[in-house]
Order: sequence, then structure tokens, then C-alpha cells
Amino acid sequence: MTAEERARSIKLVVFDVDGVLTDGGLWYGPDGEVMKRFDVKDGHAMVLARLTGLPVAILTARTSKIVETRATELKLAKVFQGRREKGPALLELCAELNVAPQQTAYMGDDVNDLPAMAACGLTACPADAVEEVKTQVHFVSQHPGGRGAARELIELVLKQTGRWAEAMAHVTGRPG
Amino acid sequence: MTAEERARSIKLVVFDVDGVLTDGGLWYGPDGEVMKRFDVKDGHAMVLARLTGLPVAILTARTSKIVETRATELKLAKVFQGRREKGPALLELCAELNVAPQQTAYMGDDVNDLPAMAACGLTACPADAVEEVKTQVHFVSQHPGGRGAARELIELVLKQTGRWAEAMAHVTGRPG
Amino acid sequence: MTAEERARSIKLVVFDVDGVLTDGGLWYGPDGEVMKRFDVKDGHAMVLARLTGLPVAILTARTSKIVETRATELKLAKVFQGRREKGPALLELCAELNVAPQQTAYMGDDVNDLPAMAACGLTACPADAVEEVKTQVHFVSQHPGGRGAARELIELVLKQTGRWAEAMAHVTGRPG
Amino acid sequence: MTAEERARSIKLVVFDVDGVLTDGGLWYGPDGEVMKRFDVKDGHAMVLARLTGLPVAILTARTSKIVETRATELKLAKVFQGRREKGPALLELCAELNVAPQQTAYMGDDVNDLPAMAACGLTACPADAVEEVKTQVHFVSQHPGGRGAARELIELVLKQTGRWAEAMAHVTGRPG
Repeated sequence: MTAEERARSIKLVVFDVDGVLTDGGLWYGPDGEVMKRFDVKDGHAMVLARLTGLPVAILTARTSKIVETRATELKLAKVFQGRREKGPALLELCAELNVAPQQTAYMGDDVNDLPAMAACGLTACPADAVEEVKTQVHFVSQHPGGRGAARELIELVLKQTGRWAEAMAHVTGRPG
Repeated sequence: MTAEERARSIKLVVFDVDGVLTDGGLWYGPDGEVMKRFDVKDGHAMVLARLTGLPVAILTARTSKIVETRATELKLAKVFQGRREKGPALLELCAELNVAPQQTAYMGDDVNDLPAMAACGLTACPADAVEEVKTQVHFVSQHPGGRGAARELIELVLKQTGRWAEAMAHVTGRPG
Repeated sequence: MTAEERARSIKLVVFDVDGVLTDGGLWYGPDGEVMKRFDVKDGHAMVLARLTGLPVAILTARTSKIVETRATELKLAKVFQGRREKGPALLELCAELNVAPQQTAYMGDDVNDLPAMAACGLTACPADAVEEVKTQVHFVSQHPGGRGAARELIELVLKQTGRWAEAMAHVTGRPG
Repeated sequence: MTAEERARSIKLVVFDVDGVLTDGGLWYGPDGEVMKRFDVKDGHAMVLARLTGLPVAILTARTSKIVETRATELKLAKVFQGRREKGPALLELCAELNVAPQQTAYMGDDVNDLPAMAACGLTACPADAVEEVKTQVHFVSQHPGGRGAARELIELVLKQTGRWAEAMAHVTGRPG
């Protein structure tokens, strides 16, 4: 099956954070992490997903109040932080949102994302993911992490599930 | 009409912020957005526009004190923030500044900018705008957002409206 | 000997900080340095090195609480800061960790790293190191500083010393 | 005369700040500018210049405590800030340091730097300077602003004035 075909069954999109929703930069001050750089176009796509009925969630091994703040602003469906074992965590997340893993898309960029990908119906990574991930996923974005990779995956799912016209209607005021 | 020909009628230039005056980076700390990265060459061009009688304004869907602060420093003609419906907002902005939309240039980078562009005499986007925007505007900058795209649009208008020599006189001390 | 052959004897990896673990950016506020940008994939590799018995250390001419904080989080074996004379400092660092310099790999990006490299069994630099360094090291990374150069060196050593399968087992939950 | 020949007479190097010692990024928070990104390799070159008897100075139209702090750390010979008319300011700076403008190198990136360049013996700009500047200077760096442009100009002058071996001796501990 092609990534396009797989996208047609997707009912949930899950993202890793560092290297996927960011470019992998960890900005440290004397007392630890001070900021993360998110992308406005990625955020816009997440809002369009929610408005058209496609939930978006986060699954990350690290823990940061910054992620919580951004996720709340975007009204994401679920945020799982501090989950080093991403395989079981992905299954738990799907169960809580009542979506089958086969109907879930996951985007990650590093080897510790592979266990979460194992059960998912559509797997994806940014253009600058590590080789082990790039060679195993169904879909490699043309954009690097934090620069449109998340946007590209969401657009793929919205288009393949017939939601894109409705999404455009939200932003242009024209009937979808 | 070419973009150059359209530029000759322009009496107002309006910019979206995130992805246009910045590279789309949203810098979040634990309590929300902490900074934005603007570009010194873009800022310089906005000052030259004002000094030669071409007003510059901002129209954005988000709201940030950071934008207000930067706009005040550059003495921009008008700042409209928190305007999710950019189509009506653009018309309102033009009315307040007493300039016809057909004499207004607008630069945006995402699909929610399309309604604002609909009425404008000259539409433009950065090199890294989304495809839906790049295929619809009159002018695609060679520079990405936050790295000279705004500068390029202002230079185009200043040159086509015969203001460039006067702008250069301001910075070189030579008679224009 | 090739870099791969040299990597087989390595028992310690030492990194310069600015330009190696970062892209060389020094972020200053009114009172001095406020942050550094580290890379999540580099950090992940340093954790995998420790988990598989390969110690990682830092040697830098500058001094910053930021480096101390990041190194503590990653549980690095040793941090030497404020050491302008890197030649003697490298020997001292090796002695403290009881590893011979010939069994030590060092990655630096500028001319002041050359004395530290003189005694090391494997020398490396990021893709954007200065020419004087690039022409003298055994291994030039395909990645620039702060964007995967450290990761690439650690992977090289883990693979050549037979630790890679064990490292992957740590992140995938599969037996190594 | 080539840039190399011009460099042989240089006894002072003057830099613009934004777009030259930085990549042109202006980082604003709610109350104005919060940080600037300098480059570690540029800074290293400025230290080597001072140690081998070549003074380095700053001339900028903007004003920032951040620049003062960084210049003090690097022990620069002179810092002129808030000087919008850079032509007269450059002459004044040279007079204070008792160096003839013909023996001064200046690196800038925008049209307001042209008046300062008019009197200088060697003019230079980063790879990403505006066209008006790139076509007028003696030397265009291969590196963009904030990413090695300043380093390249200083190396050129140190090498052409016979100081490079002494500079290398400072960092390698070998006799120059």
C-alpha cells in the first residue's frame, strides 16, 4: 500500500516533539531548557485538523512545561510526556482516544520512535530524521523537523480522507 | 499586468507577521511565546518606505505584544492583530488609512491570507510560502520569510513608484 | 589507518562545545551569554554511549553554567571548562578518567583545538570546522556543529567497537 | 589593486553589527530586543587580531547594551553605537584611534554602510549583503553575516600583514 492509500484510514495523528515539531534544537540556559521553537505553519495545520474532526496528539520521551503550554493553545487531543518506552505508550494513547493503532499515523525522527511506529497504520518522519527511521517509514516528508514536516503529514491525511475542501472553507470563508 | 506594472499604483504595503516578517518560528517558554526573530534589513526597508511617503501596515491573525513593540519602533502606519478573518480586516485597514485596496500590496505566506489578497492590487509571498499561496500571488520573493522577503517587496514598490533615489539619498547623504 | 580502524580502539570520546555541540552561536543578552542551542539527536547518542559503557567528556576554553547543566543532565563522565591550553588539559582529562590519549577520540572545530588533537588516537571535526582543522583530522563529519556532528562520531565508535546492537536494544526493547 | 594587496596596508578593522557580526536577526520580546546571536569563530578571530596587534572596532547605527557587553568581553578597541551617519562617524573613529581611513578595513552589509566605506582602504561585506553593497566592495566574504564573514576578513588581514604565524603560535603553543 502507498502512503496515500494508508492515509485514507487514519483517524488520529500522533507527533513526537523534539526534531519533529521542532528542528531538534534544545535551548538551555543556566537552569535548563528555556524555550522551544515551534512552527506557525505546523500549528495552523493542527488547528485545521481539529476543526475538521481529525484529532492530533503528542508522544514524547522528554518532559517540558513548554510542550504542555503549546498543546493547550492548539487544543490537542492528548499529550503524553516523559514516556521513554514509546511502544506501550502509543498503544495506551490510542486506547484512551478509542482509535485503533492501525488507524493511527505517527511521525518521529529517531531510533527510539521505532517501537511506537511498529503498530501504526501510517508511519512518517521529517526529511532530516536518522537513517534507521527514514528507511523504515511509509512516508518521508520533504520538509525537515520544525519546518513543515508536521504540516505535510496532516495535509496528506486531510486530503486523503476528503477533509481538505472543508479545511480550506474554514480559512477562506468560502463553502467547502 | 506584471508585478512591476502593478507596483506603480501602490500607496500602501501590508504584511502578515509570522512566516513573512519572521521565518515562522514561534519561540515558546513555559508560559507561552517569549520572542520573535525579525530581520534588520526588512526593518531598514520599512524605515525607508516611511521616509519616502509609503506607509507600511501589519495584519495578523495572532496577537502579541512583541509585534506592537516592533511596530512602534518602526513607526508603522497601522497594526491590526487578532484578526482571524483577514478579508474584512484588510478592507477595514485600507478604509482607516484611506487607501483603495487596488492601491494596496499585501504579502502573506499561508492559506488564511488568501481572503486578504483577494481585493489587493498587488499580492506577494516569501519564497517558502505554502503552494496554494505561491501559485496565486503576483509576486514570489526570492527570499524566505524573515530573511529579506519584506525588503524585496518594499524595494519593488519604491523603485516602481520612483522613490528609490530619494531613499538612497536618505542613507548616503547624497542628493536624491 | 582509516578512521574506522582507529575507532575500534576508542574508550573515551571528548567534545569541544561551541561549534561542535552547538552551531557556534553565542546568544548574548545585556548581561552576557543567556543560552546555548544543543541538539536532541546528539544528546540521545551521548546517552546511548553511556548506557553501553563508552564514557563521553567535554573540554572547552570558555566557561558557562549552561554547559554544566546540560552535562549533568546527560550524566557525562567529565567536564573541563575554562581550559585555554587544550593540549595539557586533554592529557589531564585522560589521566583522570584513566584512559590513554591513543584510546581517546576528540572532536573540535577551530585552531585552538589542534593541541588537544595532537595526542589523540582519533580526531574529528564538524563539516563546518575551519580549514586548518578539516585538513588535519582523521574524520570530517557530514553534519555541521550542533546538527548531528557529535552523533555521527559517537555512532562511528559504537559501531566499530561492537556496541551498536546493544545501543539499539536499549531503545527498541529488542534483545541486542 | 586586489583585496589581498589592499589588506597589506590595514592597521584597523571596523565592523557593522547587525547582519555582519550577526545573521541580521533581531530577537524581540514584549519590551524590545532581548538577545543577539554572535559567532564563536568570529570572536576567536577578534581575539587573535588583538593579540597580534591589529585593533578591531565596531560602528553601528543601532544602540544596544548587548553590543557593549560582547565588545567588552572581546576587549575591542572602540565601540561607536547609535551613529546613523556612518560616513562622519567612521572618520571620527579613525581619528580617535589615530589610524588613517586608507589604512582601515570596513565590513558592512546594507546601503547605510556605503558612506563609511567611501574613505576606507579596504571594504568588505558578508555573502548575504544587499546587492548595492556587494557590487561596490573590494572583498565579498564566502560566509554570510554571523557565520564566519568577520573571521574571513580578519584572517585575510592577518595573513597579508604577516601576523598569521604569530596568531597560530598563540593558539598552538608552537613558536610563531
